[in-house]
Amino acid sequence: MTSPAYSHHFSINNLPFGVASSSQHPRPQCVTRLSNTVIFLGDLQRAGLFRQVTSLPGGVFDNPTLNAFAALNKQVHKQVRQALQSALQDSGVEKLPTGSTEPTTAVRMHLPVSIPAFTDFSCSLNHVKNAGRAILNDDTPPPGFFHFPIGYGGRASTIVPSGTPITRPLGHFYDRSAGIEKKTVVYGPSQAMDYELEIGVVVGKPVPPHRGLNAKDADEHIFGLVLLNDWSARDIQGLEMVPLGPLNGKAFGTTISSWIVTLDALEPFKAPGPEPRVSLPRHLQDIVDCNYAISLKVELEHGASTTLLSKSRAQDLFWSYRQMCAHLASTGCDLQTGDILGTGTVSGPTEGSYGCLLETTQGGKVPVALSDGSSRIFLQDGDVVRMSAVAGDASSGVGFGECVGELKPARAVLEL
Amino acid sequence: MTSPAYSHHFSINNLPFGVASSSQHPRPQCVTRLSNTVIFLGDLQRAGLFRQVTSLPGGVFDNPTLNAFAALNKQVHKQVRQALQSALQDSGVEKLPTGSTEPTTAVRMHLPVSIPAFTDFSCSLNHVKNAGRAILNDDTPPPGFFHFPIGYGGRASTIVPSGTPITRPLGHFYDRSAGIEKKTVVYGPSQAMDYELEIGVVVGKPVPPHRGLNAKDADEHIFGLVLLNDWSARDIQGLEMVPLGPLNGKAFGTTISSWIVTLDALEPFKAPGPEPRVSLPRHLQDIVDCNYAISLKVELEHGASTTLLSKSRAQDLFWSYRQMCAHLASTGCDLQTGDILGTGTVSGPTEGSYGCLLETTQGGKVPVALSDGSSRIFLQDGDVVRMSAVAGDASSGVGFGECVGELKPARAVLEL
Repeated sequence: MTSPAYSHHFSINNLPFGVASSSQHPRPQCVTRLSNTVIFLGDLQRAGLFRQVTSLPGGVFDNPTLNAFAALNKQVHKQVRQALQSALQDSGVEKLPTGSTEPTTAVRMHLPVSIPAFTDFSCSLNHVKNAGRAILNDDTPPPGFFHFPIGYGGRASTIVPSGTPITRPLGHFYDRSAGIEKKTVVYGPSQAMDYELEIGVVVGKPVPPHRGLNAKDADEHIFGLVLLNDWSARDIQGLEMVPLGPLNGKAFGTTISSWIVTLDALEPFKAPGPEPRVSLPRHLQDIVDCNYAISLKVELEHGASTTLLSKSRAQDLFWSYRQMCAHLASTGCDLQTGDILGTGTVSGPTEGSYGCLLETTQGGKVPVALSDGSSRIFLQDGDVVRMSAVAGDASSGVGFGECVGELKPARAVLEL
Repeated sequence: MTSPAYSHHFSINNLPFGVASSSQHPRPQCVTRLSNTVIFLGDLQRAGLFRQVTSLPGGVFDNPTLNAFAALNKQVHKQVRQALQSALQDSGVEKLPTGSTEPTTAVRMHLPVSIPAFTDFSCSLNHVKNAGRAILNDDTPPPGFFHFPIGYGGRASTIVPSGTPITRPLGHFYDRSAGIEKKTVVYGPSQAMDYELEIGVVVGKPVPPHRGLNAKDADEHIFGLVLLNDWSARDIQGLEMVPLGPLNGKAFGTTISSWIVTLDALEPFKAPGPEPRVSLPRHLQDIVDCNYAISLKVELEHGASTTLLSKSRAQDLFWSYRQMCAHLASTGCDLQTGDILGTGTVSGPTEGSYGCLLETTQGGKVPVALSDGSSRIFLQDGDVVRMSAVAGDASSGVGFGECVGELKPARAVLEL
């Protein structure tokens, strides 16, 4: 079920893409959304609504993922968007073919794309500085930070759609109760569960191996953006990541929002990127307005209480979506349709703008107060982390909906 | 073309699986090999050779990858192997159906499986100590090393079959000519190209999410092993891997051998694993004979010269194939059919047993002499790295053939 609470994110200026099923449409298939109505695109195509769109394969929206559609030229996506806007302009969904629409409450959303690979980057200078201060008492960015977007290979197979519960993982970590100096390693349920507020690029048209890609040209290969929660077991991650980076501390689950917001919808919200600090090779040189003004927030729900944990802005990212794509493709690596490239935690420079608890609690030193009077250092079982985002401000009509998940108690994964 | 030079690796005791095509068999399909003959398994199935094998789907060997076959229960793989051994026992390939066999020189080998994910581990204590000494002058293993196999997410989409050339990547790294203290970052073709001699597990029957896996039970999910060259641009890797691990320094290409050697073939070569140094959680506790005696070597060819660079032994690995699988599955992560889990560099403790140039040249300080009188710190364009391995010794009749690739000059990946 896709929450109606975000109807204002889905004006005619948005028209994002997703995959839904329902009792009327039992097979998962491609959809868009206007306000609180989900529109089944295969029904529209069969009714001839896209007959003006050149190079749109028949039945492309009947697939259980958006991959085949996403892989098409950007021009096709634009034409589909224009056809939808024309059809919806005057009377909204009323004149759409009978049965092609359902209320959001009647549908179930699925992963919008099949995801061949997930690469997660570290694009926020604020995050890097905040996290450095929290962990090492040193906010110097890593040595490569200003030269290229630093990233690592995440686990694609455990990416789940918004609403899927996340189970607290078991793993090895330093036992803090034994005193941090003792460095005693124990195995058990993570004691340091965190979220990371991110935006994910969904690759559309693929980039073949050895082709490379200039950041300036990368829009053609970006199908759109999603919200992404890179759930992190900080204690497991902290021990394992020396020296090869995170694996089990992140591989247990990653949540993405159900709706892929296109760059066409985000176009009016273009925002300038930062001045490079060093000379960049040509493939990383980007356009001036390489960012988008997107306002993000994280809320924590537990029982009946809701607490706003942070607000941050995607236009503060140091590296752009385009630059992530260009960097990954720069050694001859391909980009596959459905690949997701995460920005890393989107944080601001000040309290209230930190995109994860590691920053918010200064590495676990300062608890954050919740509205029910309790506090958190890290997440508790039953905590629901709800991320949401709008382009511009709340009146823009272009948003991502939500990216939500509840943390469930650890369980022994082996039933023996 | 698959080299006939390794015919002694492919006795009736091996019967590995691969994917081949030829002018007679233009569609890539599943094969095995006896000596210098490639046997097309679909032809055998159609001729009724596997009629005794229960639960073998019709046409399973006609697929262009082994995934569908690999995903079956291990018992099915064993029965296919037994049927093959019965058919070949008396008169070799002579009585096989007409047209079902071709000489190795007539076929082209392809990637044996479609690879959803690649996770690379660091299982060799010797490698960790040698590399630590070479880079940091400190052979203390990373803090997690004795607790679990440390690993990172590699790039699956750039894994290529043996024989595919590898192009020297461009990237950012410290300019050594400016003096290592100056820490000047430059962008250009890697100046520190290396290989890593590894063994890769190919996952067979999948492990669903949240199921977990005990090392002791993991054989059921291991379809077999391959040789793997984790080509590494040490300079790119060195700069980028702080703090999130390797990405572009490795993502440009990884080579695997064409033949997947089954655990059934390796069974007679079981070897004891090391005593754990710390108490292990149950899922990481393995059987006593958790390793296999496999002798590996690396040769470097340039022009007409061939130099043996190293010999090492897989039975020296600190973590087993089973333990890698169990660790990755331990947080609820799934294992997918065709996933590859690499061991990391397989090294011995002494000169002549180092599985990469980083160790061999002590971090670039001591050049290695080649048979043509030249020397190497890192790889030169045109260098061919040839890895090969046999179970037991050269007379065992069970080997991996070769995992070979030539390093090609860098090229600007962007043609603008």
